Amino acid sequence: MKKIAIDAMGGDFAPQALVEGANQALQEFSDIELILYGDEAKIKQYLTASERVSIVHTDEKINSDDEPTKAIRQKKNSSMVLAAKAVKAGEADAVLSAGNTGALLAAGFFIVGRIKNIDRPGLLSTLPTVEGQGFDMLDLGANAENTAHHLYQYAKLGSFYAESVRGIKRPRVGLLNNGTESSKGDPLRKETYELLAADSSLNFIGNVEARELMNGVADVVVTDGFTGNAVLKSIEGTALSIMGQLKKSILGGGLKAKLGALLLKDSLKELKSRLDYSDAGGAVLFGLKAPVVKTHGSSDAKTVCSTIRQIRTMLHTDVVGKSVTEFSKEETQ
Amino acid sequence: MKKIAIDAMGGDFAPQALVEGANQALQEFSDIELILYGDEAKIKQYLTASERVSIVHTDEKINSDDEPTKAIRQKKNSSMVLAAKAVKAGEADAVLSAGNTGALLAAGFFIVGRIKNIDRPGLLSTLPTVEGQGFDMLDLGANAENTAHHLYQYAKLGSFYAESVRGIKRPRVGLLNNGTESSKGDPLRKETYELLAADSSLNFIGNVEARELMNGVADVVVTDGFTGNAVLKSIEGTALSIMGQLKKSILGGGLKAKLGALLLKDSLKELKSRLDYSDAGGAVLFGLKAPVVKTHGSSDAKTVCSTIRQIRTMLHTDVVGKSVTEFSKEETQ
Repeated sequence: MKKIAIDAMGGDFAPQALVEGANQALQEFSDIELILYGDEAKIKQYLTASERVSIVHTDEKINSDDEPTKAIRQKKNSSMVLAAKAVKAGEADAVLSAGNTGALLAAGFFIVGRIKNIDRPGLLSTLPTVEGQGFDMLDLGANAENTAHHLYQYAKLGSFYAESVRGIKRPRVGLLNNGTESSKGDPLRKETYELLAADSSLNFIGNVEARELMNGVADVVVTDGFTGNAVLKSIEGTALSIMGQLKKSILGGGLKAKLGALLLKDSLKELKSRLDYSDAGGAVLFGLKAPVVKTHGSSDAKTVCSTIRQIRTMLHTDVVGKSVTEFSKEETQ
Repeated sequence: MKKIAIDAMGGDFAPQALVEGANQALQEFSDIELILYGDEAKIKQYLTASERVSIVHTDEKINSDDEPTKAIRQKKNSSMVLAAKAVKAGEADAVLSAGNTGALLAAGFFIVGRIKNIDRPGLLSTLPTVEGQGFDMLDLGANAENTAHHLYQYAKLGSFYAESVRGIKRPRVGLLNNGTESSKGDPLRKETYELLAADSSLNFIGNVEARELMNGVADVVVTDGFTGNAVLKSIEGTALSIMGQLKKSILGGGLKAKLGALLLKDSLKELKSRLDYSDAGGAVLFGLKAPVVKTHGSSDAKTVCSTIRQIRTMLHTDVVGKSVTEFSKEETQ
């Protein structure tokens, strides 16, 4: 029985979305146990499950605008910190939160702790492609700076994830660069390229450009945290802007446009669901001793349930354990 | 009378699109003269204008897959190199090409030459926002690496451009970063932030995130060439993927969806035209002694004409001359 510690107080719709997501997941999976950290009375308002679930009460919580490292240090009894400590103490196998991302990164780093020989855990998400398979990208912003060796470790971690959690055999690894030729990029990219090309255990397919990401050009895309963050936010911002404009065009387009939209409803819905990658779960801070997963602050119960499913798969396939074994071989850098 | 040198042989639809764009521009503007470089017989097939236009014949051209610097050095009689040389010799005031971007950057850098005290010219484009005003971003990839001082110069250049060419008073300058707080980012961002904040001649509004770019959060956005290239390609790739998926959903959605799309036609067209920023012209390699402008390889006559309009505005407002004056004050770095 795998145990997942849930920060029930983080996110825009806490605790309702978290607790209802927990209800769903407990129905769907008989082999998990959930521990909910937060305000017991409020949690009980929404909790319908009665087996394999427990509540650890606390009044304290971390807010979305708290300074991350300070919050972790000062709010020792917050729902997020208690959830992370449960993993540290061996009382839970993984943490899920929809709260303050920076604080969760800090909690993961300082409380759960890094895998030996991994200097800089990276933030990994599965992002959508037009054909639906998706791709895993990291680092999406856990770090503001990375070395070539970090990126090399991300290629390994991303490959483990794509293979274990998404079932992709010999995942194709691409290095995000400003052109596809092997000579492209700044010194960081050139050095990373050499490291990736030299390791035959990786299925390295060379440089990939941001324009091709949604076309499924690679299964795993590695980049530094600064660029990854900018690319992720560009994709999100563009998708939101276009969908918003489409809606505006329809609403401002008179009766004809509205009738057209009504007839197109199913097609538009299908488009939206293809672009919506919340089914793939949340963002994993990968490189820690246990899964620490952030789901969107705006997550609803369904997304929370998907994220619990993702964590369950990570635990069942022991992707973290495999990483520990692999990186223990590395000489300390 | 301003003279614009046009590489008539570069781009997917050369020379037709270039020559037809020239025809249109000559009709629209009575105060410009165009010099077309390329295959005279082919150019004449499409040339309808007879005044203020001349052809300089050459058989040589640079291909899209030529190695840029080598091509510039070896193909001395190519249409692109001859156009750049005409500017260098004072026979033309600006260059336009739809050909090999890298080669045009090299031609700009080595033939047209940099403005004194500008180390690294940057690639600037006007990109779309949902409200239609757009924003200017640089560097979009002329450089793989930049220093804080380069980014500071881009803020000045971008401000000149937005004010002169787009008529925006005291343009708001944002620094692309991985968060809006002033303490965010890697050392490059932190150092750039200090430089921008210390210069009261700039209307610096602080850090901006990639997610907000299309919402018009700033008029000028500065970043290093690697990140700018990744962000530009992410925006383009996402927009193309979504529009492609929308089309696919409609085509695969049966009669109902097709009828809906027919009724929505005007709204979808309006959406497309809002996202299409070819009206704003091409990408300017800014920081050179004359306007060197790249229009998309796939540009049609209308886009070529828009780019000629853009160059005409740059020449009439003397945005390059203003930059020369401004940067001549700087101590050599």
